[in-house]
Amino acid sequence: MPLPTTLHLKWAVLIAQKKKHLLTEKPVALNVAEFDEIVRACEENGVQIMDGTMWMHHPRTHKMKEFLQDKQRFGQLKTVNSCFTFFTDPDFLKNDIRVKPDLDALGALGDAGWYGIRSILWAADYELPKTVTALQGAVLNEAGVILDCGASLQWEDGKKATFHCSFLTSLTMNITAIGTHGTLHLTDFVIPYQEQEASYTASAKPGFNELVTGWEPLPSEHTITVDLPQEVCMVREFATLVQNIKKKGAKPDMKWPTISRKTQLVLDAVKASIEKGFEPVEIVN
Amino acid sequence: MPLPTTLHLKWAVLIAQKKKHLLTEKPVALNVAEFDEIVRACEENGVQIMDGTMWMHHPRTHKMKEFLQDKQRFGQLKTVNSCFTFFTDPDFLKNDIRVKPDLDALGALGDAGWYGIRSILWAADYELPKTVTALQGAVLNEAGVILDCGASLQWEDGKKATFHCSFLTSLTMNITAIGTHGTLHLTDFVIPYQEQEASYTASAKPGFNELVTGWEPLPSEHTITVDLPQEVCMVREFATLVQNIKKKGAKPDMKWPTISRKTQLVLDAVKASIEKGFEPVEIVN
Repeated sequence: MPLPTTLHLKWAVLIAQKKKHLLTEKPVALNVAEFDEIVRACEENGVQIMDGTMWMHHPRTHKMKEFLQDKQRFGQLKTVNSCFTFFTDPDFLKNDIRVKPDLDALGALGDAGWYGIRSILWAADYELPKTVTALQGAVLNEAGVILDCGASLQWEDGKKATFHCSFLTSLTMNITAIGTHGTLHLTDFVIPYQEQEASYTASAKPGFNELVTGWEPLPSEHTITVDLPQEVCMVREFATLVQNIKKKGAKPDMKWPTISRKTQLVLDAVKASIEKGFEPVEIVN
Repeated sequence: MPLPTTLHLKWAVLIAQKKKHLLTEKPVALNVAEFDEIVRACEENGVQIMDGTMWMHHPRTHKMKEFLQDKQRFGQLKTVNSCFTFFTDPDFLKNDIRVKPDLDALGALGDAGWYGIRSILWAADYELPKTVTALQGAVLNEAGVILDCGASLQWEDGKKATFHCSFLTSLTMNITAIGTHGTLHLTDFVIPYQEQEASYTASAKPGFNELVTGWEPLPSEHTITVDLPQEVCMVREFATLVQNIKKKGAKPDMKWPTISRKTQLVLDAVKASIEKGFEPVEIVN
C-alpha cells in the first residue's frame, strides 16, 4: 500500500475487510491509536500485515544480529547511536507529500526516523525504552511538520540510545551499537552502498598495543554477498507468511506487527516530547 | 605535566612562575575558573601553555579539516556526532585516579569527553555552542564521579552535535560530521588503528542510483601515511612555539589556550547540566 500516511487508516481497514493481505509503507500510521485500528481490522479478517522496512530483510541484518547476540565478543548491549539523514532540494521542501501536514504529517520523523528507531529496537531485541527525550534543536516547517529531529532513549537497565533524522543534511545512515566487549558499526544500513554485497564492521574486545600507538585487535570488516535485493527478500518473507495462512490454515504472524507497533510507540513519544518542549516522555505500552 | 587534574592549578602556576613552558595533560583544569588562573600565570610569566590533545596534531586531522572547509563537497556543517568510550575493569573502577573525586574528579567526562567535545569544536571552527544539554542516563559512581555521560549541543545558527563518553563500554571512537552536501566519518579519531597510516571517509554529494539499490557516488576512503606518531607531532608543535619565544622574542601563542578554554567551558556546561537534572545550560563566554 503506497499511500501518504494520512490515508493509511481508511485504506488499510478497507483492504483488510476485503480479505487482502497488507504490505504497508512506513510509518504504518499517524499514531499508535490508528495503528491499533489497522491491526485490529487485519486480525478480525485473518489477513497478514507487515510494514515495508526493507533493510530488516537483508541477509546482512541477520549476520549482524549474530554478532550482537555473541556474549563473548559483543557482551551486553549498552549504547546505540543511529542516524539517517538526506538532503532534499527546495522543491521537495515546498511540495513533497512528506512536508505536508495533511499527507505525511510525521515528516522526517516518520520517513527517516522510523528506520533509526527501528534500528535501535532491533539492536535492543525489541525491548521498549522506558523514557524518550527529544533533543533540543528540532526543525519544523511553517506547517509544523518535522524536517530534522533527534532523541535520546533510556531503558530501565541503563541501556541508552540516540537517533537523528533529517531532510536537511547530506545522505548519512550509520548505526553504532556498543556493548560491554564489542562494537558493531555500519554506514549504509537503510540502503547498502551496493546491491550485490554489503558490509559491516565488528570490533571484539579491542584494546591498545603496548605503546598505545594502535589498536589490538583491529576491527574486522565482514562482507555478505547477496543474490537478491533486500526489497525482494522482504516480499518473499511476506509471501511466505501469506502462503502459511492460505495453504496451511495458519493464523497471521504477529512478529512483524508487534515490532511495527513498538516502532510506532517510540515515534509517538518522540513527537510528544518535541511538543512538550523536549521534556522526557514515558513509554506506556 | 602528567598529574591528576586536582593538582593542576597548584603545580601549573608554580611551573609558570619558574618560567617553564607548560605542556599539560587534559583536562587542563577542574573548571574554567581554575583554567583562567593557570593561563593568567602563564601570560604573566611569558610562558607557553598547550594541552596534550594529541590527535589534533595528527596529519590526518589537517586533511579532514580541508574536506570540512570545502563548500562544494561538504557544504555547511549541520551536525556532529562524536563518541569516545572504553571498557575498564573492576580494578580501574575501584582504584584508578579517574574515578576518585579528589584526583581526576571529572571522571569519564574529563578523560574521554574532553576529546569528544574538542572534536565537535574542531569541526565547528571553534565556534562555541549556545546551549548544552546533558543526555538523560548519565552514570555516576558512589562518590559522584561521572563514569558515562553524553550531551547535545546547539548553536545559534541551528548547528547541532552530540557526544557520548564512557568507561563502561567497548573501545569506540567515532566522529560523524554531516554537512549540507557531504559527510566526514572516522572510527579511530583519538588513537588511530595503526601508527604508520590513518584513514577517514569522505562522502561528497551522495545520492542513490536510479533503482535506489545503491549509492552514487560511493564514499571515498582517504589514507594518510605518517612519518611520526601524533604524540611526536604534538611535542614538535610545542617546541616550535617555545623556540619562537626563546629565540625570536615572540609572545606566547594564544591559539591553543583559546581552544583549550572553549573545551573547558563546554565541559563545565555538561557537568552543570547533569547537576541540574539534564536541564539546558547556556554557555557564557
